[in-house]
Amino acid sequence: MAPTSLAFRCRQSITPTAIRSYVAEFISTFFYVFSVVGASMASQKYMPGITTADLSSLLVAAIANAFALASAVYIAANISGGHVNPAVTFGMAVGGHVSVPTALFYWFAQMLASVMACIILRATIVGQHVPSYAIADEMTGFGASVVEGVLTFALVYTVFAASNPRRGPCNAIGAVMIGLIAGANVLAAGPFSGGSVNPACAFGSAIVAGSFKNQAVYWVGPLIGAALAGIVHDNVVFPIENVDSFRGVSEAVIA
Amino acid sequence: MAPTSLAFRCRQSITPTAIRSYVAEFISTFFYVFSVVGASMASQKYMPGITTADLSSLLVAAIANAFALASAVYIAANISGGHVNPAVTFGMAVGGHVSVPTALFYWFAQMLASVMACIILRATIVGQHVPSYAIADEMTGFGASVVEGVLTFALVYTVFAASNPRRGPCNAIGAVMIGLIAGANVLAAGPFSGGSVNPACAFGSAIVAGSFKNQAVYWVGPLIGAALAGIVHDNVVFPIENVDSFRGVSEAVIA
Amino acid sequence: MAPTSLAFRCRQSITPTAIRSYVAEFISTFFYVFSVVGASMASQKYMPGITTADLSSLLVAAIANAFALASAVYIAANISGGHVNPAVTFGMAVGGHVSVPTALFYWFAQMLASVMACIILRATIVGQHVPSYAIADEMTGFGASVVEGVLTFALVYTVFAASNPRRGPCNAIGAVMIGLIAGANVLAAGPFSGGSVNPACAFGSAIVAGSFKNQAVYWVGPLIGAALAGIVHDNVVFPIENVDSFRGVSEAVIA
Amino acid sequence: MAPTSLAFRCRQSITPTAIRSYVAEFISTFFYVFSVVGASMASQKYMPGITTADLSSLLVAAIANAFALASAVYIAANISGGHVNPAVTFGMAVGGHVSVPTALFYWFAQMLASVMACIILRATIVGQHVPSYAIADEMTGFGASVVEGVLTFALVYTVFAASNPRRGPCNAIGAVMIGLIAGANVLAAGPFSGGSVNPACAFGSAIVAGSFKNQAVYWVGPLIGAALAGIVHDNVVFPIENVDSFRGVSEAVIA
Repeated sequence: MAPTSLAFRCRQSITPTAIRSYVAEFISTFFYVFSVVGASMASQKYMPGITTADLSSLLVAAIANAFALASAVYIAANISGGHVNPAVTFGMAVGGHVSVPTALFYWFAQMLASVMACIILRATIVGQHVPSYAIADEMTGFGASVVEGVLTFALVYTVFAASNPRRGPCNAIGAVMIGLIAGANVLAAGPFSGGSVNPACAFGSAIVAGSFKNQAVYWVGPLIGAALAGIVHDNVVFPIENVDSFRGVSEAVIA
Repeated sequence: MAPTSLAFRCRQSITPTAIRSYVAEFISTFFYVFSVVGASMASQKYMPGITTADLSSLLVAAIANAFALASAVYIAANISGGHVNPAVTFGMAVGGHVSVPTALFYWFAQMLASVMACIILRATIVGQHVPSYAIADEMTGFGASVVEGVLTFALVYTVFAASNPRRGPCNAIGAVMIGLIAGANVLAAGPFSGGSVNPACAFGSAIVAGSFKNQAVYWVGPLIGAALAGIVHDNVVFPIENVDSFRGVSEAVIA
Repeated sequence: MAPTSLAFRCRQSITPTAIRSYVAEFISTFFYVFSVVGASMASQKYMPGITTADLSSLLVAAIANAFALASAVYIAANISGGHVNPAVTFGMAVGGHVSVPTALFYWFAQMLASVMACIILRATIVGQHVPSYAIADEMTGFGASVVEGVLTFALVYTVFAASNPRRGPCNAIGAVMIGLIAGANVLAAGPFSGGSVNPACAFGSAIVAGSFKNQAVYWVGPLIGAALAGIVHDNVVFPIENVDSFRGVSEAVIA
Repeated sequence: MAPTSLAFRCRQSITPTAIRSYVAEFISTFFYVFSVVGASMASQKYMPGITTADLSSLLVAAIANAFALASAVYIAANISGGHVNPAVTFGMAVGGHVSVPTALFYWFAQMLASVMACIILRATIVGQHVPSYAIADEMTGFGASVVEGVLTFALVYTVFAASNPRRGPCNAIGAVMIGLIAGANVLAAGPFSGGSVNPACAFGSAIVAGSFKNQAVYWVGPLIGAALAGIVHDNVVFPIENVDSFRGVSEAVIA
């Protein structure tokens, strides 16, 4: 890790291995968003006249999130680290686990995947519009942003824990845990802040739904929560004595 | 892998080990279809007067799929690779991981298992007919086929990821992941295209229900999606430098 | 394994390690039955006036079964093998993996645990009776027995697969799989044959509920299914070349 | 382990590693309580006029518990042992796996985390009060305490099983199992005793809700159940021949 010039980092970001990791992020994010937004459209279909959701649709959303995120993280884990979420990539970049140019390519892949998943859902499923995330009437934008930030902290902290090499070689369970915390998050926050915890998912559905109301809520809170999670994990709970050996977690794959 | 003549491949397909793997596929597919179609009949029983399903029946279908597929893949994983789905076998054959004669025997075992599971359900559960998959009124056949194809891509890509030997020796979690993506798929597509993602399951229930309406939807989309998933996985995201070492995944078991 | 006289086998069955394994079976079966029957009483409470269950109670039953069985098998796996079910013990005895005297002690521990769990539920939860398993009106006893037998085959086959030493050292996932197949079984059979798949559970609730109607259904089908599952697994799909090396699976723990 | 004076144990409890483990307990308990109490508020929101809950809210509570506890235990497992529950810490202290001063710091971190999670939920989610656990009208306080104690026995016994070093190096599945038994517990006891099984969670919600009615039920039963579980596990089912080698489980991390 001696050379850290911008030019070197940029060159690192366009190697074949790096490009494969962007494709992996694209595929994982695409299927995650397809499942989550598709499940949300399924809830809409079964409750056409009901403006507010109910507990069954909350269960559908939570289980779709948990199942889809666990498998999406798993299929990309070996190549891109399985971020599937711009907030996770942001936290990893703040913690120095991915370089900034690489993080920007990750973001682009994640956004593009989310928009394309929503477009295909809209094109194939006639008669249902793509729903965008919304905060409850009684919530303030600030309150919703705090809730989204707290839950993103939980998610990103779990991702950091799962990619800690000290967990040993049998850590495939980490992807399951990332899915479980995402499902629990939706159950807690779904009816209040929307429970996105994933700016790409909120962005894609907003693009296709044509409504950017409260979009800032799904970016500000999560990005702050993600950065804090990475800082707390790496510096307070699991301080890294030998930074370089640990940085290898995801860079070894990419560089 | 030097000899690849058709005769050699056919002989490979009728060794005792190969036959045991067909039996394993039969058993796994039988119990998968029994659970999924049985759960669908349970939903019918509790909502006799309701023509369209509701969110609870969607949850029942998704959880039955996830739980049954994970365990069905697991019990066959060591012997047949745990396909449990003709689309997976097709993707594996396109990718060169199983030979064409072996794939045909797999298909036969899967189809037979699905039909027999539906027959036993019909014979024992009096008063409920075996339901066949159906696409929503507002969907086009083409749209439903695209949705089924996209979701089969996700499933088959996950199967390829789970059977990648580079995942190391602790990869029993792969079977769980295959179940989770199947459950997420049902939540996203159940009310629109039916969410079969498994031509054998659609075929067996259609045979016993006596209705082949839209059967093509459950074959064309999934087979195309499966082939693409295998090609993308093996050539784009996880290109195999040394093909022969990787081919061993399932052929080592069979040959 | 040279000495196999009855006296020797009986002495094997009362060593301290053997007794610890009976305690482990007792504890696991107790908590499994407590959760499953407790969840059934919870369903009753929320639907007092409804004679037939609905899909939400089916989901509650399936998830209680899956979650409770997975953890019950896990906590006993290292000491008793984690049967938690007389049908599993029967299949293991038929396959020669546990001796007949040991199996009888297992049965006694499982039955006693089930009865005690139901008694404590009845004593502490005032106002709800302990429900016993029942088959649907439209089902014949024979049909229900076939369904229970098929599903017990699936469960016991999964237990055999999970305890196969050839799965390697990372097989803790096996307990999860046993839970998942149990959950899928309940979704498929709950509204028809009751979905017990566990004679101990059916026996305990029948004792405390005071109704032995159809009790034979929950014994005949499961025991036949369990025996067949063990025979098919050990002789057809995973034939054991060196029987003695495999017998060690559970006997090594006990003897 | 030669020196066991109180002064030495106290010094052990304020090393940097020990303090990191308190932070880990704080973080895990915070997110566990945030998810569980948040999910309970979500249930309230969707059923404003209904005084008694229904099966959907029971499912929401059970799945939130299972998913949140599994991931909370996982992220803290390597540093603090992942107790996330004063009853678990009590059982570990009774069994000699953590020293009394360390246990008191664990308790303080867990309580503080629970109260803070409830305060943030109350502050951000306008229009919903924080619910406190309640026992059903028809239950006696003694009966509810017995139910909570039995279920805490199950949970703590599973935690002991999961942290048993004889399980080998691939035991990350233990955290999943702890989550599953917690979910099964809620399904069995939720409508009767409340299904807390976690004194910190009951305490935090009671502080913020301002109601300490029946608080003793959520302490007496669980603490007795936890102590018994540890004693039975360590002395009856898995007796430790060489105590010192086993004590290292969590003390090695802290000391």
